[in-house]
Amino acid sequence: MRQRHKPWADDFLQENSQLIVPNAMEHKGKWQQLFNNDHPIHVEVGTGKGQYIVGMAKQHPEINFIGIEIVKSIIVTAAQKALDAEVDNLLLLNVDAADLRDIFAENEIATIYLNFSDPWPKNRHEKRRLTYHTFLEQYKEILDPSGKVIFKTDNRGLFEYSLVSFNAFGMNLEEVNLDLHAIADPLNIMTEYEEKFSAKGQVIYRSRASF
Amino acid sequence: MRQRHKPWADDFLQENSQLIVPNAMEHKGKWQQLFNNDHPIHVEVGTGKGQYIVGMAKQHPEINFIGIEIVKSIIVTAAQKALDAEVDNLLLLNVDAADLRDIFAENEIATIYLNFSDPWPKNRHEKRRLTYHTFLEQYKEILDPSGKVIFKTDNRGLFEYSLVSFNAFGMNLEEVNLDLHAIADPLNIMTEYEEKFSAKGQVIYRSRASF
Repeated sequence: MRQRHKPWADDFLQENSQLIVPNAMEHKGKWQQLFNNDHPIHVEVGTGKGQYIVGMAKQHPEINFIGIEIVKSIIVTAAQKALDAEVDNLLLLNVDAADLRDIFAENEIATIYLNFSDPWPKNRHEKRRLTYHTFLEQYKEILDPSGKVIFKTDNRGLFEYSLVSFNAFGMNLEEVNLDLHAIADPLNIMTEYEEKFSAKGQVIYRSRASF
Repeated sequence: MRQRHKPWADDFLQENSQLIVPNAMEHKGKWQQLFNNDHPIHVEVGTGKGQYIVGMAKQHPEINFIGIEIVKSIIVTAAQKALDAEVDNLLLLNVDAADLRDIFAENEIATIYLNFSDPWPKNRHEKRRLTYHTFLEQYKEILDPSGKVIFKTDNRGLFEYSLVSFNAFGMNLEEVNLDLHAIADPLNIMTEYEEKFSAKGQVIYRSRASF
């Protein structure tokens, strides 16, 4: 989706560098220091406008959250939500998550969230899907041994592909949910997409898997 | 579902013993002899009224089919369909499939079909589900090394459970289809249930997995 150009975004990012952390790679292996505690760290890859990660940060003060979003004009919206919510257990990174191992050390992360990731439906774009095996290799390395990958999507093709990919990689499928909203769960934090597509009657899928 | 009592069923079974094979265990390891060829053998566990297996037998003369159905008053309907279709590559077994290893030898089978199996939704009935690990152990033993388990259901809970169960057993998920009828496939033979529930707009799931 095309975003409005936000010429003030650079200034905003600089003024809020305590929230949107610059030079992310410098903190590899030392993220807990920035949070000033030893709580587990959960990472959302592709945070978008931040409804999910800000909601999770409010719901779980016992967890540190890091949201990664490459699009500058979108991450400022997430940052504004975080500022409004006054959460102190959330950091945002405006980086390309091409290789998470540049940003996080081995075993540094407890949970990775993939929410409504780009499905890249064409076969020739398979490598760009965030559940392609090269990404799973990254997740495996930065997750601690009991770490989880929690994946939500409304895209049937991507979910089918991802289950096969998790299995082929030797991951343990701990949960497969083929209609997340069939039973109302007050603890389920919805992303913007999830709210929109669920309201249209679209099924939402979720899986939880470990290595 | 309660079936009408069919007092003539015993006579029918005896008169059609070339089709509904008595004393199934005596043929363990020797099923191809009954078919008089060396074609691969595909088994449907829970054949019901036979629409699927008779349809498959017509579509695939190069394959031998065996349908297993414990309910006598139902298997006679399947047998009548098979007689009407005049297929010579189909046998039916009126047995309880408690342990398929009593009926089939190691590596004797190429494909197992589970179609709309009883979901046994209560946790305490988990052991009765045909995708519980004790059944997977049986399938693994009677299937040849490249053999497949092909599973169709409209039951979301059973499908979710089964994907987790296949994965936990170390099976290879080769295909997961979360809306089989989204794209019309003229080669997909529908069971009676599938026709009925699909017409109501119910999603049909299918997986293909190997050991």
